[in-house]
Amino acid sequence: MKVLKNPARNTWASILKRPTQNNIDIIEQIRPILEEIKENGDKAARKYNLKFDKYVGNLLVSEEEMKNAEKQLPKELKKAIEQAYQNIYTFHKPQFSKKTTKIETMDGVVCWRKSIGIEKVGLYIPGGTAPLFSTVLMLGIPAQIAGCQEVILCSPPKGEHLHPAILFAAKLVGIKKIFKIGGVQAIGAMAYGTETIPKVYKIFGPGNQYVTAAKQYVSQDSVAIDMPAGPSEVMVWADDSAVADFVAADLLSQAEHGVDSQVILLTTSEKFAEKAKKAVEKQLKQLPRQEIAKKALENSKVVVVENQDIALEISNLYAPEHLILAVKNAEKIAEKIINAGSVFIGNYTPESAGDYASGTNHTLPTNGYATAYSGVSVDSFVKKVTFQKISKKGLANIGSTIELMAEAEELFAHKNAVSIRLKSKK
Amino acid sequence: MKVLKNPARNTWASILKRPTQNNIDIIEQIRPILEEIKENGDKAARKYNLKFDKYVGNLLVSEEEMKNAEKQLPKELKKAIEQAYQNIYTFHKPQFSKKTTKIETMDGVVCWRKSIGIEKVGLYIPGGTAPLFSTVLMLGIPAQIAGCQEVILCSPPKGEHLHPAILFAAKLVGIKKIFKIGGVQAIGAMAYGTETIPKVYKIFGPGNQYVTAAKQYVSQDSVAIDMPAGPSEVMVWADDSAVADFVAADLLSQAEHGVDSQVILLTTSEKFAEKAKKAVEKQLKQLPRQEIAKKALENSKVVVVENQDIALEISNLYAPEHLILAVKNAEKIAEKIINAGSVFIGNYTPESAGDYASGTNHTLPTNGYATAYSGVSVDSFVKKVTFQKISKKGLANIGSTIELMAEAEELFAHKNAVSIRLKSKK
Repeated sequence: MKVLKNPARNTWASILKRPTQNNIDIIEQIRPILEEIKENGDKAARKYNLKFDKYVGNLLVSEEEMKNAEKQLPKELKKAIEQAYQNIYTFHKPQFSKKTTKIETMDGVVCWRKSIGIEKVGLYIPGGTAPLFSTVLMLGIPAQIAGCQEVILCSPPKGEHLHPAILFAAKLVGIKKIFKIGGVQAIGAMAYGTETIPKVYKIFGPGNQYVTAAKQYVSQDSVAIDMPAGPSEVMVWADDSAVADFVAADLLSQAEHGVDSQVILLTTSEKFAEKAKKAVEKQLKQLPRQEIAKKALENSKVVVVENQDIALEISNLYAPEHLILAVKNAEKIAEKIINAGSVFIGNYTPESAGDYASGTNHTLPTNGYATAYSGVSVDSFVKKVTFQKISKKGLANIGSTIELMAEAEELFAHKNAVSIRLKSKK
Repeated sequence: MKVLKNPARNTWASILKRPTQNNIDIIEQIRPILEEIKENGDKAARKYNLKFDKYVGNLLVSEEEMKNAEKQLPKELKKAIEQAYQNIYTFHKPQFSKKTTKIETMDGVVCWRKSIGIEKVGLYIPGGTAPLFSTVLMLGIPAQIAGCQEVILCSPPKGEHLHPAILFAAKLVGIKKIFKIGGVQAIGAMAYGTETIPKVYKIFGPGNQYVTAAKQYVSQDSVAIDMPAGPSEVMVWADDSAVADFVAADLLSQAEHGVDSQVILLTTSEKFAEKAKKAVEKQLKQLPRQEIAKKALENSKVVVVENQDIALEISNLYAPEHLILAVKNAEKIAEKIINAGSVFIGNYTPESAGDYASGTNHTLPTNGYATAYSGVSVDSFVKKVTFQKISKKGLANIGSTIELMAEAEELFAHKNAVSIRLKSKK
């Protein structure tokens, strides 16, 4: 980890720059696959399942596979998943409100908004090195709370099956249709629908750069997606009140995600920076995924600054996906954070708590998008539809306002839709 | 308008199909302009301002221009704009809540969510045939309520100036920085920033296909956008209780937007279909924009169905941007609508009320995106950041759950971030 001491303000942007990702070229590569799925449905889906995942079996997971999954999973792990489910459900439940308050903006003009769960949603769970069953909870629970009518899940099989923990978590969140298909072909199948896999209106979930590019492509075509995805990242803001070993563990837990993970330690204490650096080196040696973590750390930085005001500016400029505040006055600082995906306060709040079980969602905006995007929540699975009802008297009250504005915008048919009603004797 | 009687279910999708728009080719056309703005800032912005809008003056609107605008505008129109402001503000105000409820998901594990206005937002207001000052209200008011710190506005000048109604509306919503620049160059300037025009985190507003493609391009690069935009559309669902003249006026008010506007009349009454068709033909002749409306109507349809259940299915399948319910039991039907941008209930609620002044927002999802997207609201100008604080005791309660899950996902550094804290004697 490179240490930067009191960097000049005009260097901040370049210090905090993420590696650029240009998906435009990848989109051109994956476009033919998506077009083929659109055209040929299941046939194309199976073709790419064989090509990329060496899988030729049924797409739909059977009842029997579901039952076997439950048997195979250790009791302890099932209990842990159930506990996580409980906490995530408890945190997300109040995010949905059926309340529709009718607002009378003028006498006889009544408007309201209603939250409606998106009818059909698709969750993508990557295969890769590890089975990300925690993501099944993070996407499935808000979908369940939002009342989405059809929730499907796609994930690439390892061998003949999906990991039992993925199936167990899917059952907990009430998902009935699970498909053994991954990668670009899974995104295409959910976006366009095939004979077996139903078309959905919004696709959620992480994935590699091909999956991300496929999501981007279909989002311009027919379906919505959760958010643009980039490599995971953490900023730890620490001072002398922090524990170097804890901070090092947090930095490493991010670094082990992938070689492109972003890890930044921001501190007002040069002494602490040194202590943390040493702790990272020591802990790194004990990690199974140390090769990945080591590479991620090569691009990572320790930024030492003069005071908390400057640290705050840098933190809000970087807009980290995860921000850990291991500083004495952490709660006060937390109130001043405006750009971050999720904030972890104090020495006993590691990022992995939020990754798995504390209750908050772990699908968060990366790549600086925390400036404008929220993490996934029940909101992500809901649309808000506006309604209005105007009485004859109400239209008389508001009519001339509409007529004048429509005329000034030169939209005379808009004006006439009011005038014709005002003149009517019905 | 083509009349389709009781179309077979397997033809619905093709009847309701919108004209496909492929932006990928347009993106390739506009990409060099955006890259040039990114590289050369103001210099490139001015170059394209000259090329496309024949404008060479200052980018920033002056204080004097603001004052003149107020003088030039008729008193009546100013009053109308102020009334619209009042109604839109009243409807949008309750959408922002500063309340942050702390939720203790387990003993010692406290999580909460906070709404924070997006720091920097840019509003794009097209020039085109008419000055869309109503859109200034529709975007500026929620930005104001959300507490966005920097709100800028870009719009192409006509001659030397912006339309006074645009400037007047901008002043009402508290926008201080208004720039005379339009098209692709405006989107590039807001996305990347120039010496004069500040970079923003999210770009809002309608535009032609080049502006839309530019928004799409920059949304993959650095900034968020409000939503994918397509031609405006209305579905009027009417029965014999409706007034043919009113319905015709509503259909035409949509058709006058542009030749690609989508207009659909859905009805259970063949008799009403005929009456409405005749009324459209009669009213069309009196419209200044009849050439545009006529072309739009050529692609439009009257769909006659057997009963309300089928009509409901078709309406929810189409997911119209605007849905007018001119049926006897309109309020009951409204409760069953799940896919629509905004719903207008009864004979005295024309779409133009919502377009201008009733209070609801007029920036709505088109092209079937109402299945998954909401219209613009205060939510669109807000991020929700999650926070959590776990006590030492709390981590002891939740620790083993995290450890077990991290281990099952083969992320040992994630596990260690908990273990190292649990083992610590600090």
